[in-house]
Amino acid sequence: MAVALTAELKLLEKILRPHDPNLHPAVLVPNGDDAAVLQIGDKLVVLTTDAIVEGRHFNFQYYSPQQVGQKAIESCVSDVIAMGGKPLAVLISLTLSKQSGSVLVESIYQGVQRSCRRLNCYLAGGDITTGTSGLVLGVTALGLLECEERLCLRSGAKAGDSIFVSGPLGGSAAGLDLLLKGVEGFEDLKSRHLEPRCRIDIIDEIAPYASSMIDVSDGLSSEIHHICRMSGCGAVLLDERVPVSESLKAASELLGSDPWEYVYGGGEDYELLYTMPPRFRDKALGSEIGVVTEERRILRHSAAGCVDLQLKGFDHLAE
Amino acid sequence: MAVALTAELKLLEKILRPHDPNLHPAVLVPNGDDAAVLQIGDKLVVLTTDAIVEGRHFNFQYYSPQQVGQKAIESCVSDVIAMGGKPLAVLISLTLSKQSGSVLVESIYQGVQRSCRRLNCYLAGGDITTGTSGLVLGVTALGLLECEERLCLRSGAKAGDSIFVSGPLGGSAAGLDLLLKGVEGFEDLKSRHLEPRCRIDIIDEIAPYASSMIDVSDGLSSEIHHICRMSGCGAVLLDERVPVSESLKAASELLGSDPWEYVYGGGEDYELLYTMPPRFRDKALGSEIGVVTEERRILRHSAAGCVDLQLKGFDHLAE
Repeated sequence: MAVALTAELKLLEKILRPHDPNLHPAVLVPNGDDAAVLQIGDKLVVLTTDAIVEGRHFNFQYYSPQQVGQKAIESCVSDVIAMGGKPLAVLISLTLSKQSGSVLVESIYQGVQRSCRRLNCYLAGGDITTGTSGLVLGVTALGLLECEERLCLRSGAKAGDSIFVSGPLGGSAAGLDLLLKGVEGFEDLKSRHLEPRCRIDIIDEIAPYASSMIDVSDGLSSEIHHICRMSGCGAVLLDERVPVSESLKAASELLGSDPWEYVYGGGEDYELLYTMPPRFRDKALGSEIGVVTEERRILRHSAAGCVDLQLKGFDHLAE
Repeated sequence: MAVALTAELKLLEKILRPHDPNLHPAVLVPNGDDAAVLQIGDKLVVLTTDAIVEGRHFNFQYYSPQQVGQKAIESCVSDVIAMGGKPLAVLISLTLSKQSGSVLVESIYQGVQRSCRRLNCYLAGGDITTGTSGLVLGVTALGLLECEERLCLRSGAKAGDSIFVSGPLGGSAAGLDLLLKGVEGFEDLKSRHLEPRCRIDIIDEIAPYASSMIDVSDGLSSEIHHICRMSGCGAVLLDERVPVSESLKAASELLGSDPWEYVYGGGEDYELLYTMPPRFRDKALGSEIGVVTEERRILRHSAAGCVDLQLKGFDHLAE
């Protein structure tokens, strides 16, 4: 089955590829993964950028400004982590809406600084400008890779590797649904959406052994497709092994939704999806949810049987 | 005379200062200059971020998408240059308006890539998202400082140093005025606005000798105030030495404007304003326009006499 790439992915590939990486011998990993890696002196520097947009990724009706600041940092640093790196510095570029006052800006920065402290990274620069409408918070994160062995690409999965996920999936998307529909309770799920935390806490333990890795920002379906496509392999996923919280099941029932839609098609969980060769299986943290296969198709086993997994996930350019 | 800081500057200082640089021994220059400088292994890495916003910094009525892409890179890399650094990589974060199609995006990226080639720097990452209105192009630039001696801070000016500017000022602001008013001709000034070039061509020659440096993004008045404030000194500027093109004079006459308004209060020239101790004066390139003084005031000598220079420049938060 040919994988239907999302519009953003296609465009990014078209745009970023023509630039010849040979121009710079410093480029160890060109863009196209979670982040680029440059060799600077004897250090490996991980670089990535991301933006969150008011009215699209967040809304001040249910986000506090601090939460927006925190989420911007955590989600961008998550890409550094997913390469096996540790964050060193972030830079913020804030485009204000005309309504934004300095109190709002300060509150956003309080959140930024809270996450910087948590992640032990330095706020190395800030640019503030005024736009014509919604607030845009652009973040660049720079991190370090301790050694090349820690580098976790999307392309390193091999047939026979086990597939792991670091924590429960779908909670963030369900949390958003609950917030949008004004449902009381389910604070754990809402907090998965409003206050996600990247998995800096486990990266040292798994990065040396993982054969491939990606952070779950766009839903399990999209992320496993990235790994399989870039590794030239397939996968079998077992629904019964995928960690789904009781809370998510209860919320789905209340909302009349399918919890697996949140797991496969939802996003912004910022857990790590990674593969490990069988010999390192005991080093893994989280849940073993499947296995990498030679055949280039992605099969999903559930109570209902076995189906080819369709590509689902948030498409930034679909609208 | 107390310097009236712009609203953006005040806010940025308040926001960025509380974060303790001691957290990171890697921080050689904290944010607050044109860029931050981090020590990574045996290398000095220069980091800065900037954003340009449709309807505020550019408009597709007179900018081509390629020009927008180029200007975003040139203006951000200009901050790396102004620290004495050489660009290594840039990252782009593009927030599209709902009207932006993929042709527009590709055209912007053509401009980005053209400047990357010119500046020999690597496009290390791209994020594309959709916003609710105008297009926002965020750029992060990462550069290298060859050695600590090349580092050019805003704070290094000493009384007795000569003040230089690398090229003519005011052209960009006049060019914008001509474009806005639909005046024919004056392609040189319009091009100063639409297609600015950062001064990578001269940085190797002046960085080793400059005592302080800043790029002229917000007008001469604002930039000399930055240098004097951060160096704890004053300055005397001589209008007759400031390079003003014949074209700017002619355009000002046609527009009924004061050319000196463009020079002191205009912006986006991306020339370098720098100081050098007298013993290195023969190393300087461009025009010597004044001298650094002990007394903390900024005096402007013109045909009309001598006045205290008021702070003028583009205030991003003034509206």
